[in-house]
Formats: sequence, structure tokens, C-alpha cells
Amino acid sequence: MTEASKRRLRLGMVGGGEGAFIGEVHRFAARLDDHYELVAGALSSQSDKAERSAQVLGLARSYVDFEQMAQQESERSDGIEVVSIVTPNHLHAPMAMAFLKRGIHVICDKPLTATLEEAEALYQAAETSQAQFLLTHNYSAYPMVREARAMVKTGKLGNIRSIQVEYVQDWLTEPLEKTGNKQATWRSDPAQSGIAGCMGDIGSHAYQLACFVGNTQAKEILADLSSWGKGRQLDDEANILMRFCNGAKGHLWASQVAPGNENALSLRIYGDKAGIEWHQESPNELTYSVLGEPSQRLRRGNGYLSEAATSVSRIPSGHPEGYLEAFANLYSEFAEQLLTSTQSPNLPTLATGLHGMRFIAASVYSSQNNCLWVPLDD
Amino acid sequence: MTEASKRRLRLGMVGGGEGAFIGEVHRFAARLDDHYELVAGALSSQSDKAERSAQVLGLARSYVDFEQMAQQESERSDGIEVVSIVTPNHLHAPMAMAFLKRGIHVICDKPLTATLEEAEALYQAAETSQAQFLLTHNYSAYPMVREARAMVKTGKLGNIRSIQVEYVQDWLTEPLEKTGNKQATWRSDPAQSGIAGCMGDIGSHAYQLACFVGNTQAKEILADLSSWGKGRQLDDEANILMRFCNGAKGHLWASQVAPGNENALSLRIYGDKAGIEWHQESPNELTYSVLGEPSQRLRRGNGYLSEAATSVSRIPSGHPEGYLEAFANLYSEFAEQLLTSTQSPNLPTLATGLHGMRFIAASVYSSQNNCLWVPLDD
Amino acid sequence: MTEASKRRLRLGMVGGGEGAFIGEVHRFAARLDDHYELVAGALSSQSDKAERSAQVLGLARSYVDFEQMAQQESERSDGIEVVSIVTPNHLHAPMAMAFLKRGIHVICDKPLTATLEEAEALYQAAETSQAQFLLTHNYSAYPMVREARAMVKTGKLGNIRSIQVEYVQDWLTEPLEKTGNKQATWRSDPAQSGIAGCMGDIGSHAYQLACFVGNTQAKEILADLSSWGKGRQLDDEANILMRFCNGAKGHLWASQVAPGNENALSLRIYGDKAGIEWHQESPNELTYSVLGEPSQRLRRGNGYLSEAATSVSRIPSGHPEGYLEAFANLYSEFAEQLLTSTQSPNLPTLATGLHGMRFIAASVYSSQNNCLWVPLDD
Amino acid sequence: MTEASKRRLRLGMVGGGEGAFIGEVHRFAARLDDHYELVAGALSSQSDKAERSAQVLGLARSYVDFEQMAQQESERSDGIEVVSIVTPNHLHAPMAMAFLKRGIHVICDKPLTATLEEAEALYQAAETSQAQFLLTHNYSAYPMVREARAMVKTGKLGNIRSIQVEYVQDWLTEPLEKTGNKQATWRSDPAQSGIAGCMGDIGSHAYQLACFVGNTQAKEILADLSSWGKGRQLDDEANILMRFCNGAKGHLWASQVAPGNENALSLRIYGDKAGIEWHQESPNELTYSVLGEPSQRLRRGNGYLSEAATSVSRIPSGHPEGYLEAFANLYSEFAEQLLTSTQSPNLPTLATGLHGMRFIAASVYSSQNNCLWVPLDD
Repeated sequence: MTEASKRRLRLGMVGGGEGAFIGEVHRFAARLDDHYELVAGALSSQSDKAERSAQVLGLARSYVDFEQMAQQESERSDGIEVVSIVTPNHLHAPMAMAFLKRGIHVICDKPLTATLEEAEALYQAAETSQAQFLLTHNYSAYPMVREARAMVKTGKLGNIRSIQVEYVQDWLTEPLEKTGNKQATWRSDPAQSGIAGCMGDIGSHAYQLACFVGNTQAKEILADLSSWGKGRQLDDEANILMRFCNGAKGHLWASQVAPGNENALSLRIYGDKAGIEWHQESPNELTYSVLGEPSQRLRRGNGYLSEAATSVSRIPSGHPEGYLEAFANLYSEFAEQLLTSTQSPNLPTLATGLHGMRFIAASVYSSQNNCLWVPLDD
Repeated sequence: MTEASKRRLRLGMVGGGEGAFIGEVHRFAARLDDHYELVAGALSSQSDKAERSAQVLGLARSYVDFEQMAQQESERSDGIEVVSIVTPNHLHAPMAMAFLKRGIHVICDKPLTATLEEAEALYQAAETSQAQFLLTHNYSAYPMVREARAMVKTGKLGNIRSIQVEYVQDWLTEPLEKTGNKQATWRSDPAQSGIAGCMGDIGSHAYQLACFVGNTQAKEILADLSSWGKGRQLDDEANILMRFCNGAKGHLWASQVAPGNENALSLRIYGDKAGIEWHQESPNELTYSVLGEPSQRLRRGNGYLSEAATSVSRIPSGHPEGYLEAFANLYSEFAEQLLTSTQSPNLPTLATGLHGMRFIAASVYSSQNNCLWVPLDD
Repeated sequence: MTEASKRRLRLGMVGGGEGAFIGEVHRFAARLDDHYELVAGALSSQSDKAERSAQVLGLARSYVDFEQMAQQESERSDGIEVVSIVTPNHLHAPMAMAFLKRGIHVICDKPLTATLEEAEALYQAAETSQAQFLLTHNYSAYPMVREARAMVKTGKLGNIRSIQVEYVQDWLTEPLEKTGNKQATWRSDPAQSGIAGCMGDIGSHAYQLACFVGNTQAKEILADLSSWGKGRQLDDEANILMRFCNGAKGHLWASQVAPGNENALSLRIYGDKAGIEWHQESPNELTYSVLGEPSQRLRRGNGYLSEAATSVSRIPSGHPEGYLEAFANLYSEFAEQLLTSTQSPNLPTLATGLHGMRFIAASVYSSQNNCLWVPLDD
Repeated sequence: MTEASKRRLRLGMVGGGEGAFIGEVHRFAARLDDHYELVAGALSSQSDKAERSAQVLGLARSYVDFEQMAQQESERSDGIEVVSIVTPNHLHAPMAMAFLKRGIHVICDKPLTATLEEAEALYQAAETSQAQFLLTHNYSAYPMVREARAMVKTGKLGNIRSIQVEYVQDWLTEPLEKTGNKQATWRSDPAQSGIAGCMGDIGSHAYQLACFVGNTQAKEILADLSSWGKGRQLDDEANILMRFCNGAKGHLWASQVAPGNENALSLRIYGDKAGIEWHQESPNELTYSVLGEPSQRLRRGNGYLSEAATSVSRIPSGHPEGYLEAFANLYSEFAEQLLTSTQSPNLPTLATGLHGMRFIAASVYSSQNNCLWVPLDD
């Protein structure tokens, strides 16, 4: 991954005003490699907050209403070319449609929408647009995750038998949503988050990572969701069994109520020749174990890695890259895709997002039906 | 745990001749703290092998037939007081009955028997015996496992919500049973191993550990078993969802086909106040995380631990104790129990073994019925 | 650490053209929090290379000669306010003087200069300048390093007794400088690197880190330097004993010839109450061990940390920050210092650099004199 | 390492009565593989304590005076063949001489003696004895340490350049010797410990390990010893620079005052082809890094290891062996040596102990002379 050598794309942002977490992350990511220039935003639906936030960021143009923003920007010769949508889930679908239909490319946070119906509608609507779509499953852009995906693809693990993925946090152990915490509040509110809580917030990441690295997707799943937090309406933990299209089986554990876990996304995949193991909190390392040989620690930045890893790496080995760098990889690859009109095989798309929503919906349905196996029709 | 200060118990062994693994482990364990003297054995059902093995070990009396051994030893004034049964699973029940009914205490490897029916019969038969029974779930005797159990019991974790246990190996990734490997052969043969392979061999350990530390047991389970090894009749991998009597939920993953894993038994338990994490391959350490505080590394041999850990520890902190020391703890506590007639609250009993067999049987039944929830009546 | 809410400073760069490593790092760092706008550069002393590099980066003004750049920029109303010097060591002094004397603030890579004499001359020259100076000892800007420094300062470790610091790499194990590798070539050339190789390149970082966190500096040192690489003129390994002003003793090990080490900078400090341990390759974690208590893992982003760590942190715990984020902390704090005229107590200055050159010179002298103790007069 | 298949040796013990630590360790070690039978002892110089201790252990014969024991045992047809000396350092020499001169083999704890003079006298005295001598540098008997030694020997690391060894504890951070702690009291008393404290207790282990694995020994050393504990007469920390006979350089850090360290003995060796790293607290693993390749985790019990490791290993990989097992390896190899009259190339001898005393004496002399380089004549 290198700095921009082409012109910078004009970027807008919807959401991400004062007090937001993920909006700032998107801005760091857009800025790191210098492929974007943030020029417009509807940073909040409250006009004073939108205005203040825009001033702090030095935006050229500030809006309150996203429809108006889409309309006006699409009419300007120097209007935005790309918009980042960083709002609660229930707003993703209408916003994405507003920009896509006017030919503005969309970068959207996950999960794709709040409900499967919205996701299907958005997917159909997008078919008539020339604009492109990026879903920010940022964990799939870590260099060692890319290496892992390439290793599975090229058969280094043999036939895949078992996939174990987990994403574990502890920040919702207590009912934080009752204390006014902004992040907790919308995530635990069905009106804003959708049909799922933990499943949408982090379960969707874990599932996408497993599929991305495993070069497969689930054929059917079985889920047991829980709501531990007092008075909590949506799930905050999930245990899911999976049967994959490539014949592998697996388990996904997502939890936001496990004390001692910060952002512990980890993935283990085993084939009949070898196994791999990766932990998001130590992202520069991938353990690779060939049956009968000593385990190897593959580390970012070394000459023995493939193009899959080196193309999304910036600095030498031993100089840790982190979360923002991986997030920036998505932004920079999307810029490359837009500027060169070459489709990247690694970027999460609308189709990824739609499949993810099917996974979420199936998990809720299975859990409500005492852990039925539910097929994921595609 | 200290050296014997009382007389040594006279010990016999059934199984464990040339080429056996677990028989030698039992002998190390019996010897370490000097509570036992091995004086008799039916080390093999082949007479020449039995004789050679007995000579190597310097046994006073060697038998070929276990019934004969039980009979003759029970008639001697210096006959064995305790017998260790270290054979394939299908022999546990008849052997245990032979010794129990003659008043000889039994130390038996897990799983208790090859089938649930045998387990129930043995359990009933034992009710008329004065002799005592120890099932060698050795992992439950590590000092830090004992500390973990005490922490859960005294409420340091709060109400338990989630239990994740796994036991992962790789030695059956390829069909080793076809190469003449003795360990692999009997374990993958239904006639010797019983209704389960991996579930009996290691899944039973993982489940017992989860229950032991969690101070609970499963109310119902749901299982997806797999047989990956070519031509293998029994399971070599299992994903199991569990609902516990204390309200917690959980997942058990057992696999013998995951390259890069040697003997990776690990346990994580989360309550609404704190979480703990323990890994058998680093057994002297227990991670303890109180919500909102830095994680703590509790380590064997330190003054801040409770009696639960220190009573089964031998040497100072930083001087690693291992598998044999934990195994020896069972032997020494059982000796103490026999010599003082005080029942240890921590030793696995016939009841533990019977419940374990119900767990194994339920997992097989659930898997054969597309992952039905199966209750574990007790 | 948050995004810019003030105007961006106009930045120039000297060095850092095509093929450079550290120049690009400085640009990432300048860009991340949006406090700077890179507008001018003398990116190479070869005019075609300078021009190409400037075009790629979209610089407004490109120079070949740094004197000319300093002159012309100082005369423009929109000239640069700050310059980053990212060249081999022997150019630091003349370049820094050229900009400082014209009132342009300087950000300079370490070590300060190639020789102690140059360092002293630069230090004196700077006394007459209004401009400020930042030496990029970037490792001192990691959040957990800042926390460690605060912990020592507030007495959490008690009286400091022992400091162990090491910085270990392997990239010069073989004589890479003979293969045309640009980084290796200048670092092993006395004309460009100065009196020291490994000591200047990484030993200086290790020493600064030890002093920074230990809130002290060495009173006297004793050094044994080695040159293992075939035909290498400068040191590639050093073992140094140190006696500190606060009474502590310590050891510094720097090596560029230790296979298996990428960028393994680590620091351990022990007082009479507690000890701490930090590893650059896992920078988000700090181990803290109070005598007689379990070790604690302090991790970036948690509420139990002090302002020292949180003020230089961007994203939540469990979302790893890395090398570039720490480097960016220096840039952003320096911008804050320039814009608010408030001196940061944590930024490395010219005085830091001069002391560092005394350390390097003393280590060379000690080693040449069979490991004499050499005082570091200040 | 397997159980005894030959007759058991008759063993005596001097020291190791009530409250002793290392005496019990020696007994565990003697018992584990069943090569010895403990039949006699002078467990304490206080007659009542000696008697009580002997009774607890069920010894056939109990003595108070070691001279008397040596005399009487040597005259019995069933007298001890081997004696273990597990007393404070100042008693090692007279005791060892008493047994050696009567043809009784000696197993002696380290360091060899309290002073270099005693060591030399003992060495000379032993030349006229037929009996053999084992110094229990137990850490050199871990399987992965043996593997490391073999790797260095067979050139897997290339030419050795750098050796870093450290042995760090925290139990003497406070002046424990003033609280009546038995272990601390004699170790900090020059009359019982000799000329060194920490250097004799653990520095000697660290140095022996470095030499053993490095297949070399120091040509000259330079030492800076410290006494941090209030009122402590002997050293409790040491930083030592070493130049080895094979051309390598290195550093040894020993400390008993570093909070958070239990028994942290670790060794790193680097050659021009590869490096290795081993930590006593995770003894079943050895990291091996070939330049330019991913680091490998070599683990005890695997088929890819050499005879050097497998010959001193008991149980399969993933079943951790610990401190007692390594200690037992020394006992069992010594028994093998005695019974087969084949000299083991791996057992520490009187010559090892004498060289170790030269190292200790040189470190004290160097430190008293402001860190002079002191040759270790051999």
C-alpha cells in the first residue's frame, strides 16, 4: 500500500459528527494514504451539531439532510464522487439509495441494513446504478488476513474441514445502554439496530471473516442467541453451528458480555494438511502449522509472504500496523478500483452485505425455533 | 501436596504393559508422592507380554487373567488394596466389577465404559461394594484448575453466563489407525472404544472440566459430530452446544484432526462480574479479568492463591509443574481419602463417570438426529 | 489524540524521495491527524529524482538544494512553517542550521547528527533561533510508554533499581550493504552515518526510551561494541552497562545481527515496589507487577489508564494502534506546541539529541578503551 | 526417559530435613523413574529433627553426623551406593570429600562449594576416588535445552556471535532474611553461602546453561554486582559481560530483586545463520529462527526433534513436563552412567562445578575492581 500518486477523490460523509466513533475512524482511513479529500458532509441530523462538526473538520459544504446533500452534490461540477455512510444501521438503506441513484459511489459501514427486506431492496435498486459500493468489513483488509485467504485458496491447508471463528467483547456486560452511552443505546435499540444486536454489530464481521479467509460461505446454520443484559431486547451473545458449501463445519461465537475481552476477533481454520490461526489483537502475525512440522509464525512485512499481504502493507516487519491501517486499506483499494475501473477481488460488496443480512436473519430465525438448521439460500 | 508420611498402599495394575502410554503415566503418578507400592499386575492378556512387562517393573506377582488376579489378591493378607485399570474402554466395566465386588478399590481411566448401559450396570453393582472408585479425569487436578473452581464457587465471577471449552489435537488428522498404531487402532474401533471416538477420548475430559470448574452440569445438549478420517467409523470431531443447570450456555469443541494442536484443552468461563481463562499447555497460569480492571495472571505457587491451589502444589512458583504432577494429585488425594476415610470433594467418582457417559450418549443421539436438543436426565 | 480543529501548518521535507523508508513514515505521521499540509520539498539531491518525487506527492514547490529551499521559503508569505529532515545523519546538522536560523521549525530524525562536535555546534547555533526543534524518538510516543513514564514518575514502582532495555533486529546479519541496499549502505558508511552504526540507528532509540520512561539519564556507561558483518566498519551490536543518576543500574543490548528479531525494542524497569515490562512489537500492552500480587496487563484504551496514555490514543481498546500512530503523536503534539506556544513535557528536543550524541560518543570511546567507565557530563 | 528396568540404587541423603525445599525436590527426582531407593540419611544436624524427618520418610537408617554416616554406610554390604548432598553451600566440600574418599558416588547441589579454594581442594581430592560426581544443574536436563545444545553443536545456528542469558526472580526484593525465612537466611549469609549470593544461587545456573547450550565457555568476564536489599551483605543482582572461547560475546543478568519475576531463566543464542530462544517457565518450547524464514516453535514430544530431546522425554507432546521431570532426568542419567559405566556427555561434573566457581570468583573480583575484565583460566 503506497501513498497516492493519482488525483484525490472528492469525499462526503453522512453521520460521524461529534461523539461518533466510527465516523472518525473512516476519516483517518480516508486520509492515511491521501487518496481522498473530505469536502462535504451531513454529519448530524441536528443542524447545530452538523454545523459545529463541519467547522471543526474544515468542510467546504455542510448539510443537515442527506437527500438534499445527495441532490445538490450530484449537481455540482466539483461535487463529491464518493460518500461514506457511518450512521446507525436503519439509515444505511435509504441513504445508500439516495446516493447510488445519483451516481455517487458509496462506502457504507456494516451490517448492510437493519433488516433483510431493506437489504434486498437496496440490492435491487443498485442494479440500475453505475456507482460502486464498498461495505467496510475492515478486518478482511489486514495483511495477514489476506495472506491467510491466499493460503487457503492455493491449497496450502488441503481440504478444509473445520472453521472456528469468534468475536468477543465485554463492553455490554452491564446494561450500558441505560446510562446514556451513545454507542450502546442505538446498538441495543431494535428501531435503530434492526433485528439483531451483537449479531449485527460483531457477529456479521466474524462471519464475513470466516467466509473471506475460508473462500466459502455457509450452506446452513443453527443458532442459539442470548440476551444477558438486564432488560436488553436484542441479543448480546450467540453460539452458531455452521455447515459450509465446501464441506467444512464450524462454530461462531460472538459475545459482548465476556469480561476481559476487548475486541477479540479470532479465526482458526483447519484442513487435512495444515491449520492457520489469526488474532485481531495481534494482527501482524499468522500461525501456520503443517501437520507433523513445527508451527511457523508468519509475520507482516517479511519477504517470504505473498503479494496478497505485501500489497496492503506499508512499513517494514516489526513495525506494527494496526486497525486504522487495515481500515485504510479498504479505502485505498476502493479508490484504486474507482480510478482504474479494475474490480478488486478482495473488497466486500453489496452482495457480501446481502449475504451477511441473510446470515443474521437466519440466526435470529433459528434461535427463535429452538435451533433449527436454516439454509442460507443465495 | 507433600510426600507420604503414612504407610504406602499396595497397588495392582490391569493393562499398561509394553507399548502402552497411559499405564506408564499411572505408574509415574502413583510413584511421585510415594503413597503406593506397585506389587501385582495383569499387564497384558498375552501371557508372554504380561510376564516380560512384570519383570521389567519388578512386580512381585504377575497375572494374565484379571478375574484370577482379583480373586487371588483378595485372598492374600498382603494382597493389593487398590487396582488401576488402564485398558481400552470396553474392558473397564467387567474389570471394575471384578475388583469392586471383592472390596478392592478401583482407579479407572476415562471414559467410564464403552456404553451407557455398561455404565449404569457398573454404577448399580458398585452400590453394594465397600470399595471406593476414582475416575482419572486428571486435568481437574491441576492447581490452577482447582483455584478456578474455587473462584466460581465463591462468586468471584458473579452469575455464570457463558462457558467455552475446547480440547483440540491433530494426531488423527490422517488415518493413523490403518498404520498399526496401537493407540489409534483401539480408539477408532467401536468394539473397543464404544459408541464414540473423539467424544470418549477427549470430549469427555473437556465436558468434565467445564462442569468441574463451572460447579454445574449440562441440562441439555445439542451435538454435531463428524468423522473426517478416511474410512473412520467413529467421530473425530464434535461441536456441541450446551445449556447448563445454572442457566449458563456454552460450546464444546473437541477435535483430533486440527493440525498444529497437540493437546490443547482450554476453558473460558464468564460471569456478570468477571471471566477466567485456562490452557492446559500452560497449566501454571490462570487469567482472571474483573470487568473494568486490568486482566491478572494468577500463577501457581504464589501466596495470593487459596488453599484450593496450594494444597495440590509441590514446588515454588516459576518452577513449572506439569501433566504428571496433576495426575499424581489424583492418586495422592485418593490415597489420603482411603487412609483417612474422609471423602474428597474434588475427586471424580463413579457418579461423575456415569454422567459423563450420559453426555457421550446424548451427543451421539443428537448428532444422529440432526442436532436435536437432548436432555441429560440425572 | 484527535483530529485537527485548528489550521494546518505548512510543512516542507528534506530527503525522503523515491525508495526512502523514513520519509514516507514522516508523511503518514504528518497526515494522520491532519495538522499539516505538505507543500514543499527538496526530496533528493539529484534533480530528476527530486522532481519525480515531488510530482508523485503533488507538492506545490520542489527544490534540489536545501539552502535554496530554506532561503526561498523563508521569504514567501505562504512559505513553510516547519521542515522535516529525513536524510542520512551527516546532513542533519547543516540542514537544521539552515532552517533554524531562518525561523523555520525543524522536525529531525535521530540520531541528532553524525558526530558529537556537530551536535554541540547545532545546539549552540539554535540558542539564537526562535524556531523550535523536534527529534523524532517516535517510540516514546506510544500510549503505553507514556503510561509507563507516568507510573515511574508518580512512584508506583518505588525506588528504581534496575533498567533493562534492548533493541534487536536481524536485517544486517549478512553484509547487506554490499548488495546495494540503500538503507544498509548509508548506515554502515562512516561518512554518512558518523562514528556509530547500530548505536546511532537503534541504540540511541533504546537509550532514549530507557531515560524517558525511567525519568533519569545515565551518569556513566561502559560499552563493548562489535562489528560482526564481514568487512563492516561500524558497530552492528553493543552490550552496554549503565549507572543512572537516580542510583539505578542497567544494561542495554542493541543488535542488528540476531536472526529472528525484526524490531524488538523492549524495556523492563524494576523498583523496590513493582516492575513494568513493555515490548514495541505488542505496543498496546504494558505488564505491571506489584511485588506479591498477580501481574496485571494494562492495555491501551481502557478507563483505568491515566491521562498520559489517553491523551495520545485514538481508538477504543482492542483496536490495535501501531507504529504510525505513535509517530503521528509526535507530529500532532509538536503542532499543538507550535500553535499554542505551550511546551510539551514529553517531546524530545535538541537537548535530548545532544545528550544522545554524548551517549553514542561515550559508548564508542569506552569500547575502544577495553570497556572503561565513561562519564556522561551534561 | 523410561522407567527403571535395572536394579534400583541404594541412595542416602545429607540435609533435606523438615522445611527444606531442595531436599524434597531431590527425592521427587530420585523417585520418578524408580532408579533409586532412599534408605539412609543425615537429614539434619539437629538430632531430634533428623530423627523426625527420617521417620516421616520411612528411612531404614538415620544419622546426625555425616562423617559417621559415610563411615558406617561404606562398611555395610547393603550400604548406600550414592549420596545426595542438599545442604547450604559451605558444607558441600567436606561432605563430598567424606563420601568420595569411601567410594560412595555423590550427587551435589550447586554451586559446588562456598569458595574457589574449597572447590579446588575438592577437585584434587576427587582425583584419587573411584566414585563419580554429579552436580545438579537441573535446567540443563530439560528436553528442549538438550535439543538446543545439539542444534548449536551440529551447526544449525552457524558461527555463534551473541549469547544473552538471564535468571530473574523477585523473592529477595525485600530483606526477607530478616524475617526468619530459612531459604533467605542462609543464602544471604557469607558464612553459609560463600563469597556470593545471587551469583551462587542463580547466576551459576544461568552461566552453566549458556555454556552448556553454547558448547563453549567464557574466556574473560566483566561484572557489576549490586546489593539492593537493606543491610544485605552479598549480591542480589548482577550484570556481567562475557567473551567466549568460540568468539561470541554476551551478557548475563541475574537478579533476585525484580518484582514480577518468579523463576525467569531464559537463554537466547544467535549465530550467523539462525537464532534460538528458550524460557524455563515455558520449558516445552524452543523458538528457532533461520534468517529470512518464519520463526518455528519446536515443541517437546514431536517426531521432528532429535534423539537429544526424545531421550529425556517421557510423555507425548502437549502434555507438559516440568521442573521435576528435568531434575529427574539428571538422576536417571546418572543411574544409567553408574550401572553401565558409560560416561554421559551431558551431565555436569566436578569440572563443571570448579569452572563455575572460577566464574563466581571472577565476577566478585571484577566487581570489586570497577569492572575489570577478568580471565577465567582453566
